Amino acid sequence: MKILAIYEQTVPLNAPMRNASVAYDTMTASALAVVSDCVMNGEPVVGYAFDSIGRYGKGGLLRDRFIPRLLAASPAALLDQRGLIDPDAAVAALMKNEKDGGHGERPGAVGLIDAALWDLRAKLEARPLWRLLAERAGRPSPQEAQTFDVYGSCGHFRPGRGTAELDGLAREVQAAKAEGFSTIKIKLGGASIDDDLARTRVAIAAAEGARVAVDVNGKLDASIESGWLQAMAQLNVAWVEEPASPLDYHRLSKIAAVTPMPLATGENLFSLDDARNLLRYGGLQPDRDLIQIDISLSYGVAEYLRIVSEFEAAGWSRAAFVPHAGHLFAAQAVAGLGLGMHESASDLSLPFGGLWDGTAIKAGHVAASEAPGVGFELKSSLFQWLKPLVARDRNSAGVSSIIAGTVG
Amino acid sequence: MKILAIYEQTVPLNAPMRNASVAYDTMTASALAVVSDCVMNGEPVVGYAFDSIGRYGKGGLLRDRFIPRLLAASPAALLDQRGLIDPDAAVAALMKNEKDGGHGERPGAVGLIDAALWDLRAKLEARPLWRLLAERAGRPSPQEAQTFDVYGSCGHFRPGRGTAELDGLAREVQAAKAEGFSTIKIKLGGASIDDDLARTRVAIAAAEGARVAVDVNGKLDASIESGWLQAMAQLNVAWVEEPASPLDYHRLSKIAAVTPMPLATGENLFSLDDARNLLRYGGLQPDRDLIQIDISLSYGVAEYLRIVSEFEAAGWSRAAFVPHAGHLFAAQAVAGLGLGMHESASDLSLPFGGLWDGTAIKAGHVAASEAPGVGFELKSSLFQWLKPLVARDRNSAGVSSIIAGTVG
Repeated sequence: MKILAIYEQTVPLNAPMRNASVAYDTMTASALAVVSDCVMNGEPVVGYAFDSIGRYGKGGLLRDRFIPRLLAASPAALLDQRGLIDPDAAVAALMKNEKDGGHGERPGAVGLIDAALWDLRAKLEARPLWRLLAERAGRPSPQEAQTFDVYGSCGHFRPGRGTAELDGLAREVQAAKAEGFSTIKIKLGGASIDDDLARTRVAIAAAEGARVAVDVNGKLDASIESGWLQAMAQLNVAWVEEPASPLDYHRLSKIAAVTPMPLATGENLFSLDDARNLLRYGGLQPDRDLIQIDISLSYGVAEYLRIVSEFEAAGWSRAAFVPHAGHLFAAQAVAGLGLGMHESASDLSLPFGGLWDGTAIKAGHVAASEAPGVGFELKSSLFQWLKPLVARDRNSAGVSSIIAGTVG
Repeated sequence: MKILAIYEQTVPLNAPMRNASVAYDTMTASALAVVSDCVMNGEPVVGYAFDSIGRYGKGGLLRDRFIPRLLAASPAALLDQRGLIDPDAAVAALMKNEKDGGHGERPGAVGLIDAALWDLRAKLEARPLWRLLAERAGRPSPQEAQTFDVYGSCGHFRPGRGTAELDGLAREVQAAKAEGFSTIKIKLGGASIDDDLARTRVAIAAAEGARVAVDVNGKLDASIESGWLQAMAQLNVAWVEEPASPLDYHRLSKIAAVTPMPLATGENLFSLDDARNLLRYGGLQPDRDLIQIDISLSYGVAEYLRIVSEFEAAGWSRAAFVPHAGHLFAAQAVAGLGLGMHESASDLSLPFGGLWDGTAIKAGHVAASEAPGVGFELKSSLFQWLKPLVARDRNSAGVSSIIAGTVG
């Protein structure tokens, strides 16, 4: 088999919300389609991927460097012994002539391709991705259905709500609870103890018994840190997310030493190199804290498994791994790799909200899809962004596509 | 004043050489031109920048994110109180809605724009950039000529040389010595003690009294580390560069503790966040070791000065700062900020080799150019890549240009 074409498209999110760090009104994400020369049911088999949200689309790097490099690789070098596409081999080809260090946008471009190739591979085997990932990680793949834990992510700041901000927050949390989430995460500002306490109390009341986690996105003001941590500890939150800037391991270790609250971090570390430094210097506790490295922003599955192994060797369990990015690829990884929890955007009006269409969430548990691949085809609000990528293949109206034969 | 247009071009290097980490045959770099609405001598004043080499051009990020963001900023927000372009304000505008962490390609895209704006600013003041940078850093700007120290960087692996590799290495070092360098850096492989010793001895003999530094580009094999460090210490090298992978501070600190040799590192750390972790965890010694953070790969001058301040507060001196990238912008910074040494590619056949045309190197010292700006116009081998960027302005034959009016 070989790759016939790779299409990418930058998708504007236009979401009228923000967290303590960034606004989403001008945020973008990348959609990717890898078309193979294999045909099933009369159609070419296509692997899809959709970006994690928060660090912009990867279009430039995909077009300038990584798509041309993948298309220039010998097709045989990308296959395993069974003659099927091998995402690990593809990532190795993508990283040829890349220097160590500087893990910023590059890991996301490589990880997006890795994710699409895993979707392709699983479709070629006509199996759900989580079963392949379980095998890749050396875990037994059960015959019966697999369930995994999820938490609902919501409660962003919505500047348009004005004085109704807290009412809106309460409604979001109530809706998440009604959807079946038993753990619900909201955004805090990190700039005012009173504001953040008020917000958290509203969420706890609205959650009606579900656990509430809080996220300051690395923006907890150092001048209020001590009082903020003490006040928040009274509220029994599920965890505090990104209390320190992502690379400030020293500050994180000081916070970890003084607070009893579980801490969660790692969504802005994109490599084994950086994750290992978090492990070495961050002062996190294996029996309490959560690691949120984003799989497809961090070079993909192989690098993620290296990270998990590094932590396991230091006494951590897979249950502490709660990958960032509420997308279906991450859900497959949580199910297949036996990770702790899947983050799911609980606002179903977002194209990246929720799981496969009709998925029932029962007391925070979800049954993994049995559809082949990642199952993008079963999520209509997202698949509307992916399907047109390939439609361009037949009527070449698209301008931001790259076809094997025309890469410069 | 305002910015009329920004042009960028990816330049293929096609250099038939490699270091222990990457080959340069498919390496690219970005050239950038920022055209202002100011006219001097009948011509629009243009700020130029040319990339540091080794981590690929920044075209995609420039086109997708940073050039549009700069052009969308209010012109007034980019000016200082004198009404002139303010690179610090521009960088702040570029970093709006960017998350913390993940310092990979982004710092280089932002730093390239910063560099071009500094060239523009200095030209508007009709002064050499080093005088502006001295003022920016609060240093006295001398009336008379300024000199600074340089070292010659050469001795890459050239696969085409085959068994004549060591002869070729010797000729490169001899040529660097003849050009006037008193410190000359060569590349080692880090895979074999014998090979690296042979290479270093050849270089020391050819250097005829000039100091020889060695660079393993993060690829020193851990299995030979101890013997390699002991053997190399007998040769009295000027420094050992990147003995550990850039983010492996733990390994670096262990090496720093056991070797008497000066260590140099930092060219693959692109932010204050990462530089501070090097300072905290790398075990480097202020009276011995060298910091090689690359200014324009690291968000530019303002971030670099924050890094220098962080190290100064920990007892380091500016003499320990030897920025990566043998380009003219770095030379201006070394002269203006009073840094230790400038790295200069001693192969003058490379477009990024050497300094301004005709610059004399006397016992490792160079006189700073008095031309306005960075002085790209006085380096013909490089300016041939920059000048056509703007020529496109008048006859729109270029396709990879972005003009203010057409940014999507």
